[in-house]
Amino acid sequence: MSDAGDLIHPVILCGGSGTRLWPASRESFPKQFIPLAEPGRSSFQATAARLSDATFARPAVITANDARFLVAEQLAQGGIGADILLEPCRRDSAPAVAVAALHAAARDPQALVLILPADHAIGDEAGFVAAARAARAGARAGHIMTLGIAPTQPSTAYGYIQPGGALPGEAGASGARAVARFLEKPDASRAAGLIDEGALWNGGYFLFRADVMLDELEVHAPEVLAAASAALATAARDLDFVRLGAEAFGKAPQISIDYAVMERTERAGVLPVSFPWSDIGTWGALWDIAARDAEGNALRGRVALRNTRNSLVHSTGEILTTVVGLDDVVVVTTDDAVLVTSRTAAGEVKGLVEGLRRRSEPEADAHRLMYRPWGSYQRIDIGGRFQVKRITVKPGGRLSLQKHHHRAEHWVVVRGTAEVTVDGVVRLVHENEAAYLPIGCVHRLANPGKIPLELIEVQVGSYTGEDDIIRIEDVYGREGA
Amino acid sequence: MSDAGDLIHPVILCGGSGTRLWPASRESFPKQFIPLAEPGRSSFQATAARLSDATFARPAVITANDARFLVAEQLAQGGIGADILLEPCRRDSAPAVAVAALHAAARDPQALVLILPADHAIGDEAGFVAAARAARAGARAGHIMTLGIAPTQPSTAYGYIQPGGALPGEAGASGARAVARFLEKPDASRAAGLIDEGALWNGGYFLFRADVMLDELEVHAPEVLAAASAALATAARDLDFVRLGAEAFGKAPQISIDYAVMERTERAGVLPVSFPWSDIGTWGALWDIAARDAEGNALRGRVALRNTRNSLVHSTGEILTTVVGLDDVVVVTTDDAVLVTSRTAAGEVKGLVEGLRRRSEPEADAHRLMYRPWGSYQRIDIGGRFQVKRITVKPGGRLSLQKHHHRAEHWVVVRGTAEVTVDGVVRLVHENEAAYLPIGCVHRLANPGKIPLELIEVQVGSYTGEDDIIRIEDVYGREGA
Repeated sequence: MSDAGDLIHPVILCGGSGTRLWPASRESFPKQFIPLAEPGRSSFQATAARLSDATFARPAVITANDARFLVAEQLAQGGIGADILLEPCRRDSAPAVAVAALHAAARDPQALVLILPADHAIGDEAGFVAAARAARAGARAGHIMTLGIAPTQPSTAYGYIQPGGALPGEAGASGARAVARFLEKPDASRAAGLIDEGALWNGGYFLFRADVMLDELEVHAPEVLAAASAALATAARDLDFVRLGAEAFGKAPQISIDYAVMERTERAGVLPVSFPWSDIGTWGALWDIAARDAEGNALRGRVALRNTRNSLVHSTGEILTTVVGLDDVVVVTTDDAVLVTSRTAAGEVKGLVEGLRRRSEPEADAHRLMYRPWGSYQRIDIGGRFQVKRITVKPGGRLSLQKHHHRAEHWVVVRGTAEVTVDGVVRLVHENEAAYLPIGCVHRLANPGKIPLELIEVQVGSYTGEDDIIRIEDVYGREGA
Repeated sequence: MSDAGDLIHPVILCGGSGTRLWPASRESFPKQFIPLAEPGRSSFQATAARLSDATFARPAVITANDARFLVAEQLAQGGIGADILLEPCRRDSAPAVAVAALHAAARDPQALVLILPADHAIGDEAGFVAAARAARAGARAGHIMTLGIAPTQPSTAYGYIQPGGALPGEAGASGARAVARFLEKPDASRAAGLIDEGALWNGGYFLFRADVMLDELEVHAPEVLAAASAALATAARDLDFVRLGAEAFGKAPQISIDYAVMERTERAGVLPVSFPWSDIGTWGALWDIAARDAEGNALRGRVALRNTRNSLVHSTGEILTTVVGLDDVVVVTTDDAVLVTSRTAAGEVKGLVEGLRRRSEPEADAHRLMYRPWGSYQRIDIGGRFQVKRITVKPGGRLSLQKHHHRAEHWVVVRGTAEVTVDGVVRLVHENEAAYLPIGCVHRLANPGKIPLELIEVQVGSYTGEDDIIRIEDVYGREGA
């Protein structure tokens, strides 16, 4: 076996939506991209950073098409290079794992592949790396290794793994064992019983030889493998992304790797691990792992409490958030939405968000701050016939060449320098200067400078919706409106 | 006695700050001016409207100087004429009652004066008018009549009145009685005992002959009377307002009419009344009187609940406010602040606000939406070297002629027509047009039209504070910055 065969090829699965952490987490900006467990770094960034050890090869990231610029941006912030594979639609984890195995096998059929969720917090980075290394022998020997996390409470939120006997030979030297059984999320009393029997949490980490996983997929989930294979064969390179073939990928059944393979294969192994771990599944789970003050409160942002204990209060926008005379509550404030719940009821937030979707509340899925490949924009005011946005364009960023049927726009540059194109005429607009874009003109905004460009856009017209953008040309390959 | 002697001269005391109803109620816009108990009408407006019955003469309003345009605006909305007397500083109720008595006595020494708080909800308007009429005989006979409200619970938030024997003659015919004793706010068990003994709540309504109150002030609080008298003698008429002399009024002791006169006089009488009444002292008290749905929830604005009961959830801005799995809570959301508390802990909000003041949080006292005599403005965004406001100017409204040392301004009209003066040049700016005001230019904004003018102001400069407004001339008599 070559030295390269020792390297682990990590693949981060980044496709979740995390509605239980609404209103911070939304479809347009899901929890793995938000600095929740640590200030200033998202769990996706922490996951990618965890892979900087020499144990790991260049990582791949499999994510939703809509999240592609967010992934690229967050990797760039962390100075991390990765292959980014884009799923044209959501199909749960089995098709993604199949793509990961095929992607690695193209270079080395026996490549060791580690599947990692993007949204977990791990309290001991070295412990994680050591676990990945310890599981390697089992994977090399042909097992599909999982990490079995030592339970800290009889949780009903996780699947459990019942370990069997030690794996034979070198594979078992590190403590790795066969899997006797995968168990779905139990009720509370069953959970306690499972823990007494020595069961472990299934954290969703899988380490395997690419060829082994492909064999097992061929046996247990051939439709998944066929769809993944066709999606890679029809993939397009789009800027820095590998865009999986939409028609082929859409034919994959929506199924998790646990159901598709792990519960059926006889090659499953488990390495018991004991590093501190959380999937940050709910606001209550975040409180569990958060730094807390003497009153047991986990606080973030502009917050003031009085006579309040054991609570999580997160204010992510400008809003001042206050709590008086309550214990064990969760209060999360963003610029456009507020959630108040208890630590124990926090799991019901998913149902709340589903209700908001049925009512077509825009806050259910979209944030006011919207990320784009060129930067971001945020609505700051809206009225009967106008809308005001703050627009930030990164150095070198270029919006699409576009026009509007129903609105004129006034741009006031408040920081940096804008390059404004109007009906073919290009000019520079500096701080404290303005540009006017009449209805119907063909225009483009770009930042030719070295610092971010910020401008205030005042839209005036009978309709100011996002779908009145007629794109004529776009450097980021976006189509239509 | 003349017919005019039968008219009751109502005086609404409007000087409170209502911090226990923060964040809706703030120093800059206190609770009596907010539509809390009813949508679309403040308790001040409801109080003024209650006086439209022929029983009452033209009302007077005594309010803080800072609230003068708010009072005038809300009276105009209700089509109500009133004398508006401005207190240059806060001195509690005794000086205001002295001013009220002197103001009425100037026209008729025996005028009947009714003092009303501006911040109460009354569930039976006709019952209130009938009570005022029924108390009239006692006042005419020289008693200082109070309304004694039938307690509905052993509240510790109110003072109590122990009634004595019936007033003699015609004065007692309506059920009016002498006052045996005024009792300060009791503890809970004492409150229950007081109710068993037939005690009534002191709601802060007083009906008296002006000369009687002046006599009693002379005896029991001569410093109050002297200060009030001098403040009226040195008052200035300022537009539609009577501005009490600041130096004289400032010398008045800060004392309530209860302490200064009622607890000492032998002329106190009480008319027991039973109309539904609330002083809306806390968010919990507002829930008590609010319309509630089948789950016991009192809701206002953009709100979504799940598995939540007996709660008050008010969202007054654009923010979507959600509650999951909690009972008996209070959640109040404004554009810039959120309060989460329980119905029973709501009284502690005052202490919270005091803490916010110590931390110099701007949201403690000021709203983002600021009322001005010419209209209103609201900050919608702020950054390192810029600020964005939405400005609304009433038809006919004119801002001061002013200049700034540290900022330029861009105005984009999004509704109506602006008359813009820049360094002596006047021009009209229409919807979807913009004006630029360089640093240091002398400028003025006015609305010459028939509909409200709305514009977006983008300020760019090294400093964008409100104190960089150098006023050169102002039609509303405001001075300095």
